[in-house]
Amino acid sequence: MKFISCESSFAAANIVIFGAPYDGTTSNRPGARFAGRAIRAESYGMETYSPYLDKDLSDFKIHDGGDLELPFGDPVPVLDMVCDYTKSVLAAEKIPLMLGGEHLVTLGAFRAVHEKFPQVNIVHFDAHADLRDEYLGQRLSHATVMRRCYDLIGDEGVFQFGIRSGEREEFRWGENHVYTEKFTVKTIPNIIKKLKDKPVYLTIDLDVLDTGVFPATGTPEAGGISFNELLNAIEQVSQLNIVGADICELSPPYDNTGASTALACKVVRELILSLR
Amino acid sequence: MKFISCESSFAAANIVIFGAPYDGTTSNRPGARFAGRAIRAESYGMETYSPYLDKDLSDFKIHDGGDLELPFGDPVPVLDMVCDYTKSVLAAEKIPLMLGGEHLVTLGAFRAVHEKFPQVNIVHFDAHADLRDEYLGQRLSHATVMRRCYDLIGDEGVFQFGIRSGEREEFRWGENHVYTEKFTVKTIPNIIKKLKDKPVYLTIDLDVLDTGVFPATGTPEAGGISFNELLNAIEQVSQLNIVGADICELSPPYDNTGASTALACKVVRELILSLR
Amino acid sequence: MKFISCESSFAAANIVIFGAPYDGTTSNRPGARFAGRAIRAESYGMETYSPYLDKDLSDFKIHDGGDLELPFGDPVPVLDMVCDYTKSVLAAEKIPLMLGGEHLVTLGAFRAVHEKFPQVNIVHFDAHADLRDEYLGQRLSHATVMRRCYDLIGDEGVFQFGIRSGEREEFRWGENHVYTEKFTVKTIPNIIKKLKDKPVYLTIDLDVLDTGVFPATGTPEAGGISFNELLNAIEQVSQLNIVGADICELSPPYDNTGASTALACKVVRELILSLR
Amino acid sequence: MKFISCESSFAAANIVIFGAPYDGTTSNRPGARFAGRAIRAESYGMETYSPYLDKDLSDFKIHDGGDLELPFGDPVPVLDMVCDYTKSVLAAEKIPLMLGGEHLVTLGAFRAVHEKFPQVNIVHFDAHADLRDEYLGQRLSHATVMRRCYDLIGDEGVFQFGIRSGEREEFRWGENHVYTEKFTVKTIPNIIKKLKDKPVYLTIDLDVLDTGVFPATGTPEAGGISFNELLNAIEQVSQLNIVGADICELSPPYDNTGASTALACKVVRELILSLR
Amino acid sequence: MKFISCESSFAAANIVIFGAPYDGTTSNRPGARFAGRAIRAESYGMETYSPYLDKDLSDFKIHDGGDLELPFGDPVPVLDMVCDYTKSVLAAEKIPLMLGGEHLVTLGAFRAVHEKFPQVNIVHFDAHADLRDEYLGQRLSHATVMRRCYDLIGDEGVFQFGIRSGEREEFRWGENHVYTEKFTVKTIPNIIKKLKDKPVYLTIDLDVLDTGVFPATGTPEAGGISFNELLNAIEQVSQLNIVGADICELSPPYDNTGASTALACKVVRELILSLR
Amino acid sequence: MKFISCESSFAAANIVIFGAPYDGTTSNRPGARFAGRAIRAESYGMETYSPYLDKDLSDFKIHDGGDLELPFGDPVPVLDMVCDYTKSVLAAEKIPLMLGGEHLVTLGAFRAVHEKFPQVNIVHFDAHADLRDEYLGQRLSHATVMRRCYDLIGDEGVFQFGIRSGEREEFRWGENHVYTEKFTVKTIPNIIKKLKDKPVYLTIDLDVLDTGVFPATGTPEAGGISFNELLNAIEQVSQLNIVGADICELSPPYDNTGASTALACKVVRELILSLR
Repeated sequence: MKFISCESSFAAANIVIFGAPYDGTTSNRPGARFAGRAIRAESYGMETYSPYLDKDLSDFKIHDGGDLELPFGDPVPVLDMVCDYTKSVLAAEKIPLMLGGEHLVTLGAFRAVHEKFPQVNIVHFDAHADLRDEYLGQRLSHATVMRRCYDLIGDEGVFQFGIRSGEREEFRWGENHVYTEKFTVKTIPNIIKKLKDKPVYLTIDLDVLDTGVFPATGTPEAGGISFNELLNAIEQVSQLNIVGADICELSPPYDNTGASTALACKVVRELILSLR
Repeated sequence: MKFISCESSFAAANIVIFGAPYDGTTSNRPGARFAGRAIRAESYGMETYSPYLDKDLSDFKIHDGGDLELPFGDPVPVLDMVCDYTKSVLAAEKIPLMLGGEHLVTLGAFRAVHEKFPQVNIVHFDAHADLRDEYLGQRLSHATVMRRCYDLIGDEGVFQFGIRSGEREEFRWGENHVYTEKFTVKTIPNIIKKLKDKPVYLTIDLDVLDTGVFPATGTPEAGGISFNELLNAIEQVSQLNIVGADICELSPPYDNTGASTALACKVVRELILSLR
Repeated sequence: MKFISCESSFAAANIVIFGAPYDGTTSNRPGARFAGRAIRAESYGMETYSPYLDKDLSDFKIHDGGDLELPFGDPVPVLDMVCDYTKSVLAAEKIPLMLGGEHLVTLGAFRAVHEKFPQVNIVHFDAHADLRDEYLGQRLSHATVMRRCYDLIGDEGVFQFGIRSGEREEFRWGENHVYTEKFTVKTIPNIIKKLKDKPVYLTIDLDVLDTGVFPATGTPEAGGISFNELLNAIEQVSQLNIVGADICELSPPYDNTGASTALACKVVRELILSLR
Repeated sequence: MKFISCESSFAAANIVIFGAPYDGTTSNRPGARFAGRAIRAESYGMETYSPYLDKDLSDFKIHDGGDLELPFGDPVPVLDMVCDYTKSVLAAEKIPLMLGGEHLVTLGAFRAVHEKFPQVNIVHFDAHADLRDEYLGQRLSHATVMRRCYDLIGDEGVFQFGIRSGEREEFRWGENHVYTEKFTVKTIPNIIKKLKDKPVYLTIDLDVLDTGVFPATGTPEAGGISFNELLNAIEQVSQLNIVGADICELSPPYDNTGASTALACKVVRELILSLR
Repeated sequence: MKFISCESSFAAANIVIFGAPYDGTTSNRPGARFAGRAIRAESYGMETYSPYLDKDLSDFKIHDGGDLELPFGDPVPVLDMVCDYTKSVLAAEKIPLMLGGEHLVTLGAFRAVHEKFPQVNIVHFDAHADLRDEYLGQRLSHATVMRRCYDLIGDEGVFQFGIRSGEREEFRWGENHVYTEKFTVKTIPNIIKKLKDKPVYLTIDLDVLDTGVFPATGTPEAGGISFNELLNAIEQVSQLNIVGADICELSPPYDNTGASTALACKVVRELILSLR
Repeated sequence: MKFISCESSFAAANIVIFGAPYDGTTSNRPGARFAGRAIRAESYGMETYSPYLDKDLSDFKIHDGGDLELPFGDPVPVLDMVCDYTKSVLAAEKIPLMLGGEHLVTLGAFRAVHEKFPQVNIVHFDAHADLRDEYLGQRLSHATVMRRCYDLIGDEGVFQFGIRSGEREEFRWGENHVYTEKFTVKTIPNIIKKLKDKPVYLTIDLDVLDTGVFPATGTPEAGGISFNELLNAIEQVSQLNIVGADICELSPPYDNTGASTALACKVVRELILSLR
């Protein structure tokens, strides 16, 4: 089953969707591994047309590569496989759009993107800073993923929005090394100006959303942004030169009403339609 | 079990509530058939007094006719039975207030209203345009219900608010035949002026609400209006000459927390108190 | 997404699985429309090997034709489409194995089977007799489906097991027209002897199972048979000349634990492996 | 809403059903207050005919008095109100059949029965002995209810079956004062002989059932009896002179699949049909 | 298990958290008894650092006294035990922070606070006025709790915010005896000025929040305030001389997604950090 | 929070309970990490007395060491930490009783046990053979755990019961290297005779139980043994020289009714009481 209307062949497509069903380092509530499967199935309850953008998925060429067949447990081989697949997409001059999975999978995709675009910046929507250097002794974790991305690109490359949870030390460290807008996404226009033309990787941890509209995630954090704010943020960022993107941290086992999965489908649709 | 405080006899009542427990054409998640029953049971967890309107259900004469005993499957006899019951209410000079069921049941009630009030207009709150001419080969569907109502009253009779989902073709067709406010309900005052004194049928598909406050519906669509916006919209529209109304598309099997059903009870209360 | 290991082409296959996602006449709790989709997705949590039969799905050629794209509401076109697809399978000399949907879809498949095999008998596992002549004025209903099948083949063609719910009139009528074992499935060996060599259609309403192991169905009826009893019953019946089969009435929205869907996957696996 | 087919007037009825929606002393998971309401609503998904007994509810005269309007918190006035209503039923020479609520409500009904029938015995199906003298300092509790009944009738009046949970002291005390069959219900025939002709009150705590078929209860205890064993036990006991009965401890908020409520409906049906 | 980072001894602590697991007078959906336990367990999914206040729980001395061992049923001994424990906290010159339980437990804590601080005022966030004089014949009830507190301190001592549900009589009575801001919390600054320096007890019924972000409560009332509005309100009120506080009415059995419990944890964290 | 009645100090205890909250290699539905926490919390809804064994937890000295603080992702450090803790228990001449977690954690405990008791045998209750040599390229997995244990002790050391799922290759390999009773646990007496006096490690994957009574597990497999059969099996095996034990694979996020967790509590109680 493919995401609705993403029936193009790999060769013909401009955008390639794929799933990274891994949640092995999730420290709170696992289940994000099922997100790709759930999003695809529920996408058929959604229209292909966006009244927000007045565009339709059926007008574009998108390939859905399905979920990668990843091992469980140790994240090292997982990230390698995610990286390799992303490289194959980039090598074919297509935009990779990954469906996590927990947030650590971003590192796999970003490594590939960084290899091809060494000047790449990251725009990061999230409730959590994800800037720890290690977590329970592990350097590869959903809680360290942005720090590991930072390791690749250094200061002035990471732009975070909507952050409302983290250790005091993460915030302190972040003040000197990354751009962080706490709680909200109002300063995106400033960043747009700054990043104009540079390659950008966009990573969306869906827990940036308020738990009212998006409870089905590993660590729900009240006080997030609204769906309309997220759509608006995506639309703005899409003016940049997006060379890769992902959405992460939908955890279907906690989506009792189905509304979180349905919302995620719309984010994917709007993200695709914004990219082009 | 009757909706709280709706203990009047049919003869004595000014408003007649009844349920239309049908969800046979629901294309996504069925269950709206259980809405009337759930709303009645949960209404006893709600006060009869509205602090919004400073009115109390106990001051009014309302009859609850219970759920109609409708067949399953083919919608043709269902709509006939809904139409017949609505006629009996109208014939007694009372206002029918129907509890769906899926949105198609509106057509049954509207046929009766249209027969008595040929100049009737429709005010329609919904996430979905419901303007397709057919759906999977069927002309009677929740996805075509507003188009079928349109067939009865023609251009300039349908006023839609909050619409945020539909096919491109529905929106295109709608531009020439109905009034549509996308996403929001801000232009109601303009319509109030236009419709002053004309008979109006008000149909509320509860999925017009944001999925944060109302996830328990057949097709949840993120990005909807708030509960307070809906109450305000109802209050405004109630200045018009409302000759019939309905609320549809609560699907209790997806109301894991009970909050959607409780919300629907309040909408019914506020709608009744606004009508009088 | 196909049922696990059912990757054969239509042409090469001996058995053809397909889904009939219709639950329009379900009078209690709808949702069986989602069964095919849920069974396919969950089948990947199951082994292809059966320690019961010491056989493996990977040894057989099975085609999964996916879910038919059926309309909603009126059952007449639905049954026609189910019948047509079943005919195409039979015309190619393959065994159709349908995943309902509610039990009425059996009628569509059985019409096709009866056309090709006019001497066909039905072996029927169910909690419900399904022998009403009409239900709420409708002759096509999950509650009448066995009566409609009976209409095609007459006395001494329908063999029911596990029946523990019905109107008094259904049981009275059944005494004169069909074979019914109430509550249990102990007399299968007698029927095996009787039907030897004749073509048989096997329909399994999964609510024949005890609600302890299979709660996720439209109308749960306590006091049913165990999973092992069902496997054993299937194995026995498979000695007959099975020319078509179905399993019905898994309702995934009520499968909170996932255990009912997982069980249904195993029934499909064992049924396939028993057929060959 | 009345229990299906219990439409007789109080005056004309032989059996009077009523609900006691109280769960104030429930020490584990509350919610049994909703049982009466849930059982009535779900009863419409069940047939009125019993293939077990070949009897039909429609042949009998049963009145459903609805749920009593009980206060919350302090059990003293609650038990008084339950007792008073039960007296009114007994005074009219009818059999009271109470739908709990938690098990403590049995004491209210039993007081009334004991007043009219001082020689009454209790047959008690339960997972729990309920024989404590006090619980957390309270003498009125679901955990003491059988001890309080014992206080009224003394040694050789309480007959317990299926007991599989309690404090060591309860069991020790019980050895000298009540009849207890642990785990199973096999010795009912012996008790039948002993009690022949004496008035009997039958109280069924539904948690006597295995948690596989009946998980939706305040304190689930694995290892219980099957549904068929319970039906059989009821049928046997109904040969006695039953002057009152109750079923308790369905907790609908924990009935995610609806199967426990559906089972309870059947127990009510079979109990009614066995009484007459 | 203690609330995260509340590992101080009683003697060393400035703030003492304790749970009051009672929901015996809950008239709608019970379950608040489990709130303390659930909040503690989920608190480990939350950071100790607040980016809102730039403070960290680890900087403070907080004792978690666990859940009191309360009886069930009759509220009289329950309130006594809550009162006694609160007195012991106050006697040691610490601030009590109680985790309900239903709202009635506030009366127990407030009695102790009032005894020590006879001039104490109450700031009350809630959806419900809780001002009835009795409810179903009972004077001790979650629906009367503010009236009972009023009985202790009289006119001009109770300040309510966010109220959106109650009987007409409650609102009428309240107009003459308490300060009530309906629906919103905008007038807090006025009250801050008025109460400056006086001792204040803060009681937060979490159902003051919108059901979108906080559905897991006994009586969900749509149209409440947002999480950010609540945080802001707490921060303002904490400028006053808070001598005791509580949060009530989280009902974990209705928290299917876990998001309500996670939100409650954050409210506790922010409340603690605001107090100091 | 400790398991009920397990309040002994480490030094004084004969048995040491501890949790291993890891589910990183779970290939189907994760969540077993929460089992220890859930079992402890729910244990307070259970009596300390066993009417099965006529013993009481309060008579024994048991220490609950809580959940180990394990990292996520890579299983290597996890198994080391589990092994180290188990060694500390064994070094103090106590019996370790581990609460998983997924089944892989057994390897950590078994390594410690094997070091101290090189002649140790394993008695293994499970639905799954867990005998693969690798799974998706990983040698450390819940699907390979028994193979890894086998690697330590070789032929004639592993005794499996209740197995009903696995690859054909696992069963084939097992025929030559381990003892396997498929589906049932009837041959335990034979093994008891064989193992008399030898040290035995008992590992219970709770999915050996039927999904009717135990749905809340990572991979539900219909057709398992009953609760009473499991108790009986434990009682028999406890005649042997048990030097360590574990129960695994309760997954609380799937325990919607709470009945699976309650059952697991009883298994822990009975296991403890059988050990001594």
